[in-house]
Amino acid sequence: MIRIGVLVSGRGSNLESILKSTGSGPIKGARVSVVISNRPEARALRVARRYGVKAVALPPGSDSPDRLGASLATILESHGVTRKEGLVLLAGFMKVLPASFVELYRGRIMNIHPSLLPAFPGLNAQGQAIDRGVKVSGCTVHFVVPEVDAGPIIIQKAVPVKEGDDEDSLSARILRQEHRAYPEAVGLFVQGRLRIVGRGVQVKK
Amino acid sequence: MIRIGVLVSGRGSNLESILKSTGSGPIKGARVSVVISNRPEARALRVARRYGVKAVALPPGSDSPDRLGASLATILESHGVTRKEGLVLLAGFMKVLPASFVELYRGRIMNIHPSLLPAFPGLNAQGQAIDRGVKVSGCTVHFVVPEVDAGPIIIQKAVPVKEGDDEDSLSARILRQEHRAYPEAVGLFVQGRLRIVGRGVQVKK
Repeated sequence: MIRIGVLVSGRGSNLESILKSTGSGPIKGARVSVVISNRPEARALRVARRYGVKAVALPPGSDSPDRLGASLATILESHGVTRKEGLVLLAGFMKVLPASFVELYRGRIMNIHPSLLPAFPGLNAQGQAIDRGVKVSGCTVHFVVPEVDAGPIIIQKAVPVKEGDDEDSLSARILRQEHRAYPEAVGLFVQGRLRIVGRGVQVKK
Repeated sequence: MIRIGVLVSGRGSNLESILKSTGSGPIKGARVSVVISNRPEARALRVARRYGVKAVALPPGSDSPDRLGASLATILESHGVTRKEGLVLLAGFMKVLPASFVELYRGRIMNIHPSLLPAFPGLNAQGQAIDRGVKVSGCTVHFVVPEVDAGPIIIQKAVPVKEGDDEDSLSARILRQEHRAYPEAVGLFVQGRLRIVGRGVQVKK
């Protein structure tokens, strides 16, 4: 059984797609053991509790990178999300993880980003896409490396940008694909089908 | 009747997709009047002649940006591809156009690029995509501005990057979409449905 820790900051819609897929869902062999938010008021914590999953707000003063890494590692390990066998999912977590934490959980941290990376890294990817006038965008699930939005890519899903789209309508269309892509990526991980090779990810049959 | 000039350097596969669509093809109201190559030995010149289209190699010594711009403008204008009513298509043209030429034909020069811009601009976009390990790539038709691969985007088509792909197999898959995208973009232009708005292109119904 792979134990998953999900790091959140916001409303928790990607968290919910993961919660629906694991545990008693279609992804056998994994369950979410803990959800951790840097914001105590994050709606995602309520989502976690609704699914009967432990929801933890980071203690005040966890803001420095060193403290953030230490706090996360402590909470994750104490819920069985170990650096040897666990899986850490970033689901709208708005803090940059310290490199030491990323190294500790190397190859066991995933993030989802609302663009087809390497296009539009960083904040507000959907707004960047609208401003640039692209006709195709999408989402990317990738392993996390210390450099932001630069890790090996597991899954990407494309969506059209339609005439008259604004940031909100494009975000909604991308989000529907995020809710498919993230559980797919977790499923591949749980089945042992992902192998990081160089800057890429090989998906075994 | 919109007269089109196509600038080439290589084998002319995108040229052929344009030649098939214009003239007596499905795009009414446009025909290719001249094909210009910076390389006299380019296979694309033979493709042009096979379709009965005037094929011109740039004179030796057209390499400096100023001379390149002047040579192109002279040949295009003399074949009716005017800066007021013509359309210039880059189809694998391996020279950077001087800004003065781009300004002269402002909003009337298109290029096709084998990636989903802004990802992987510049040379060997397909190899860049393989090296980065993306799972989705594609092609982009855009209006040309002086900055390379940065112009307003008209059409993008996505393709999957499959397990085991190399640069050749990915290039072939993208090329099939290029052969659909470029005639589509030309058709929209000929129908007067493209409007450059800021950094983007509005496609009218």
